[in-house]
Amino acid sequence: MDHQMGLKREETGVDASKELPPCCLKAMAALPESESKCINTVVTGWFSEPQSFSGESCKYFNNPMWPGEAHSLKVEKILFKGKSDYQEILVFEVLVVGGGDGGVLREISRHSSVERIDICEIDKMVIDVCEKYFPYLSLGFEDPRVSLHVGDAAKFLREASEGMYDAIIVDSSDPIGPAQELVERPFFETIARALRPGGVLCTMAESMWLHTHLIQDMLSICRATFKGSVHYAWTSVPTYPSGSIGFMICSTDGPPVDFLNPVNPIEKQDARKSQRELKFYNTEMHKAAFALPSFAKKELNKFLTPQTVKVI
Amino acid sequence: MDHQMGLKREETGVDASKELPPCCLKAMAALPESESKCINTVVTGWFSEPQSFSGESCKYFNNPMWPGEAHSLKVEKILFKGKSDYQEILVFEVLVVGGGDGGVLREISRHSSVERIDICEIDKMVIDVCEKYFPYLSLGFEDPRVSLHVGDAAKFLREASEGMYDAIIVDSSDPIGPAQELVERPFFETIARALRPGGVLCTMAESMWLHTHLIQDMLSICRATFKGSVHYAWTSVPTYPSGSIGFMICSTDGPPVDFLNPVNPIEKQDARKSQRELKFYNTEMHKAAFALPSFAKKELNKFLTPQTVKVI
Repeated sequence: MDHQMGLKREETGVDASKELPPCCLKAMAALPESESKCINTVVTGWFSEPQSFSGESCKYFNNPMWPGEAHSLKVEKILFKGKSDYQEILVFEVLVVGGGDGGVLREISRHSSVERIDICEIDKMVIDVCEKYFPYLSLGFEDPRVSLHVGDAAKFLREASEGMYDAIIVDSSDPIGPAQELVERPFFETIARALRPGGVLCTMAESMWLHTHLIQDMLSICRATFKGSVHYAWTSVPTYPSGSIGFMICSTDGPPVDFLNPVNPIEKQDARKSQRELKFYNTEMHKAAFALPSFAKKELNKFLTPQTVKVI
Repeated sequence: MDHQMGLKREETGVDASKELPPCCLKAMAALPESESKCINTVVTGWFSEPQSFSGESCKYFNNPMWPGEAHSLKVEKILFKGKSDYQEILVFEVLVVGGGDGGVLREISRHSSVERIDICEIDKMVIDVCEKYFPYLSLGFEDPRVSLHVGDAAKFLREASEGMYDAIIVDSSDPIGPAQELVERPFFETIARALRPGGVLCTMAESMWLHTHLIQDMLSICRATFKGSVHYAWTSVPTYPSGSIGFMICSTDGPPVDFLNPVNPIEKQDARKSQRELKFYNTEMHKAAFALPSFAKKELNKFLTPQTVKVI
């Protein structure tokens, strides 16, 4: 792979300010062929998200985001398989999907303080498929406070009134590929503009184990864009490569937001309403999510708002 | 798999007090054939810990501990392949192994308060192979405080003087298979006997995502055996199935041990000695490790010593 080591970002259409680490060079080199030929697939009853056919069309047995790694799940039965304009969709008997599945809406619905929820999903097929196969997720759409907008989120936000939102949650797919625009500076600036002073952004921000340089890029942009505060948190997700996923949490200039100590702890919400019991999230886990391993602190701290994490 | 649903533990040689959950029934049913025929293997440059040959000899493409799941890593080069009396050993260019690799010794060596370190490893081949291929781990053996004992840990501890140790760390392999004895009551009683009053046990205790019933069994035994306190903590390990591994941390009756707040924080140790910098562990991560998701709290809390986790 030596011939790829000099590959710079301008050759791949990405910011050319610094060289990419070897892991991403391999990933980028694999991109054109993987995008055209390699799809998530099921071979002899096993599903690997990062996987290609073993034939000649692909050199990599994996997703370009995670070279050299594959995670396989045994598939009992394929319920749905189709290709929308934006992505390939497979539905298994047991598997959680991201995006417009309604799961985030369902969780927002727990909060009685929320008055209005706009959701902008580009891929209507995701919504339709999830409604059929994941009704326990898509019930989030049933909340009367929800307004659905099918379309491009960047465009939607550009057209939104300035300071319109208290909080914006970005639940998109991985940043290398079609969703790349959603981790670049113009999109974050559009978000900051659409948020009120002291408004909050939460977006998925990669695994600290795999792509700290992508996290650095995102944090660096947000540090320049969000004048309130910028934080990084993570949690355990067994189905995601490396077993964990991170979140970037920022606030715009305005009333300070204490992200580590929720003003409306979920336990109080749950006590007030007879909703489905939460299986994972609680206030202790919320706070612990901000504790970072030393290597992540070392690589990310210069972009983060200082915080004190203490467990007593 | 319906015919396996009634399988009870007496049929598999395990405690018959309650029925096993479906995940482990599958695992147990696969055991005899997987132990005899299935080994970790490398197929076309990929290594799957839970994997079998795709021929007729094995029905399961995975390790019986994790039915329906496989995690694959791309292997650059096989450096060593051999079979000891106890296990098959493969060494790749990049891969962390458990057991007698010296890694735990190396970390204990950081603590100047430790006067003597006995290590009991049953498999001499692990030590030899790691010395050759993982010198940065096995350097733990070079500490003059270390005494190596090659043999069965249970026997070693039975012969130890009562109350001899301040702390015992069990770094064994998975509890289904040869190391099963190390998660059963007699072994824990032997440990408790070998510890001083207020002495500490730390042992690996499965992933909360995969085997809460095994964790419950271990905690239940330890709650009866360790009269000081019993705790469960976890951390992110990308290479382990589900991406996380748990630890059971107990103390014998005696001076109470505050597990959440280390009396000798590692940061102070590091500042005092010019050792290799820690990449993961720090006091924040130590404390955060005790925060449990709601489902784990619900299933494990009755076995645990109450604690207050607060992040400020």
